[in-house]
Amino acid sequence: MEVAAYMQKLGQQAREASRVLARVTTNNKNTALLAIATAIRSQADGLKTANQQDLQAGKAKGLDAAMLDRLTLTDGRIESMAQGLEQIAALPDPIGEISDMRYRPSGIQLGQMRVPLGVIGIIYESRPNVTADAAGLCLKSGNATILRGGSEAIHSNQAIADCIHQGLQQAGLPITAVQVVEITDREAVGQLITMPEYVDVVVPRGGKSLIERISHDARVPVIKHLDGICHVYVDVEADLTMAQEIAFNAKCHRYGVCNAMETLLVHADIANEFLPAMAKRFISEGVELRGCNKTLHILPDINVATDADWDTEYLAPILSIKIVTDVDDAMLHIYQHSSAHTESIVTQNYDTARRFLQEVDSSSVLVNASTRFADGFEYGLGAEIGISTDKLHARGPVGLNGLTSQKWIVFGSGQIRT
Amino acid sequence: MEVAAYMQKLGQQAREASRVLARVTTNNKNTALLAIATAIRSQADGLKTANQQDLQAGKAKGLDAAMLDRLTLTDGRIESMAQGLEQIAALPDPIGEISDMRYRPSGIQLGQMRVPLGVIGIIYESRPNVTADAAGLCLKSGNATILRGGSEAIHSNQAIADCIHQGLQQAGLPITAVQVVEITDREAVGQLITMPEYVDVVVPRGGKSLIERISHDARVPVIKHLDGICHVYVDVEADLTMAQEIAFNAKCHRYGVCNAMETLLVHADIANEFLPAMAKRFISEGVELRGCNKTLHILPDINVATDADWDTEYLAPILSIKIVTDVDDAMLHIYQHSSAHTESIVTQNYDTARRFLQEVDSSSVLVNASTRFADGFEYGLGAEIGISTDKLHARGPVGLNGLTSQKWIVFGSGQIRT
Repeated sequence: MEVAAYMQKLGQQAREASRVLARVTTNNKNTALLAIATAIRSQADGLKTANQQDLQAGKAKGLDAAMLDRLTLTDGRIESMAQGLEQIAALPDPIGEISDMRYRPSGIQLGQMRVPLGVIGIIYESRPNVTADAAGLCLKSGNATILRGGSEAIHSNQAIADCIHQGLQQAGLPITAVQVVEITDREAVGQLITMPEYVDVVVPRGGKSLIERISHDARVPVIKHLDGICHVYVDVEADLTMAQEIAFNAKCHRYGVCNAMETLLVHADIANEFLPAMAKRFISEGVELRGCNKTLHILPDINVATDADWDTEYLAPILSIKIVTDVDDAMLHIYQHSSAHTESIVTQNYDTARRFLQEVDSSSVLVNASTRFADGFEYGLGAEIGISTDKLHARGPVGLNGLTSQKWIVFGSGQIRT
Repeated sequence: MEVAAYMQKLGQQAREASRVLARVTTNNKNTALLAIATAIRSQADGLKTANQQDLQAGKAKGLDAAMLDRLTLTDGRIESMAQGLEQIAALPDPIGEISDMRYRPSGIQLGQMRVPLGVIGIIYESRPNVTADAAGLCLKSGNATILRGGSEAIHSNQAIADCIHQGLQQAGLPITAVQVVEITDREAVGQLITMPEYVDVVVPRGGKSLIERISHDARVPVIKHLDGICHVYVDVEADLTMAQEIAFNAKCHRYGVCNAMETLLVHADIANEFLPAMAKRFISEGVELRGCNKTLHILPDINVATDADWDTEYLAPILSIKIVTDVDDAMLHIYQHSSAHTESIVTQNYDTARRFLQEVDSSSVLVNASTRFADGFEYGLGAEIGISTDKLHARGPVGLNGLTSQKWIVFGSGQIRT
């Protein structure tokens, strides 16, 4: 009950702050962002001290090396946080943008105005830099934020929150515009996602099980993606040199990212020509290959792919390969196994490219480009709060606009309905 | 368990049909819509016979006159259904629309393509015409539909579904593109709203309690509005003649609609001048007035408004009136009591109009026009599946675009990330 009361109080304060944020000027928001960046730079030592507390506790708790690495605030990462906020300040303000104003036969002039969503809850795990990044994006888009980071990063997050509050105060904005949940009790998350009266949307960032649990229990909308099971389909009319470059980049540029390729689909008629050289390159890079039966006829030394492989996001140097009969067969496989994140086709055929673009139901669909481009920075959104594999509201990389809504506005001169 | 299996089957069939619909041509969809309209016209007698069954059962069950009226299919209403489908056929096809294509520094060309949501569940009450309207909108936007009408309209809805299926067949489309739930068991709704694997969004239309229950239990996104507690604020700088026309129209044009005004907010400095004539006009129209204490000083003969009045959607010839000190006080009242549907200000002051437009957080915000304009037809959407008071995805009147999503598309020429 104490947790509930605490979270309700944060919620109320956030809702009140959101009313203030909805009417502050662009200049005011940018001043705050730059002041936060300055505070982060000038308090780098304090941030590292707080971070040491978390790191020591993490080591004592036996966190693994990867988790400790994500948790660590180095000078470079602190500088990156500050620069990230400066980049957000430099982005155009989406709020107040009016579009599509037109006259209706009744004489009213109708359009849409972009406005903040209100209050955004962010739930994340060990990386403390998310505290600054998410706060910055929400502030720029005129939203109040409630940040719930991992308990292992609590001291780092609170130290970053102190910098944020200094910046907000310097700019004359309420410090409740950005609130970090200060209790590590798990129930705090349960409360945060079930207060539709105070929270307009939650964005969970982290492992699949965290996101599944939040999606299941939430009573407010959730912007999320669960998996990135991304496919590259090499068509019979592909430029095979291009196909090899794209497939290699999609798999090997980075393994642990959601827009990496997990399954390579190859048209049967070019498989004999394409696969041996492609496989050799993957194997020399240390990628484990797992193939369908037809693939094994061409590449007899690789492992066999089981049914589970087609539905697995490896996030590792592992790749499943399937030979398909045509683009329809490829799209059927994608329909059955894709997580609707990102798919790419390599082809020189106009009709095949058009069909793939139209019919594949994923948040990003590419022709002759690596799946690795499905990313907020590559798409020019300036920054990214996450990637959505849902179809409503935000789809794909979510930037500032994904944290806004459009309301209808009408300019009249006394019109009434008759 | 039988209900669950039946609904699962409908869901699977709808999902399969949605794959077909995503790739049919505009012409093909329009042919189907026109064929359905023809079938409805030619089978008017059959529709009326089925409707008689429902009406007789309804009378036996003791449905009230208003409900029986909504349930009745007259020749005029049948013709309206057919015309509605023809109007939907005449609308531009939103699907496949590509927008904002631009080159990125990497060389990829990036844009967005409008695509169907997939499968839409519609849950509604007694009006059988919703069956044809909703099916038409979903079909045009490339979505498969599962329609769950009121049990009191089951024969009428099935007869309309027969016409729809004839039209779909004539156009060579799968009849599972539009499915009417044929069992009246309440559990069918519970199933429909908890099958995220088969249903992408549900749109409940009906009374507040139905919509609240569905929102609470749904495991899929819901496009909805609960209340229309709409306000008109008459500013100190209003043209009072215009204000009287707008307020009268907003309240009296139709009482039972969600965009009717329920509370009139009046600036204190013009209340003495404005309210007496305004009240006289409302009273002569048979509208019951309920005022705040300050209002009662000017209009001593009207009833006093209780706290509950400010939060009540009357949907009736009743109006609450409150005197406010300024636009901030008006916006505070709206923040506390509005259902975020539609609010209007009457003012000639530029700054006051701008502030109201920017700061009032409702789906439609109007200056110098009646709240009654907040409507899909008036906004030029061509048709309306409902009105959303939520902020994510669709906001305000929801037309064809609200039943679509935008995916990212990329044209490349071999780009990889470096």
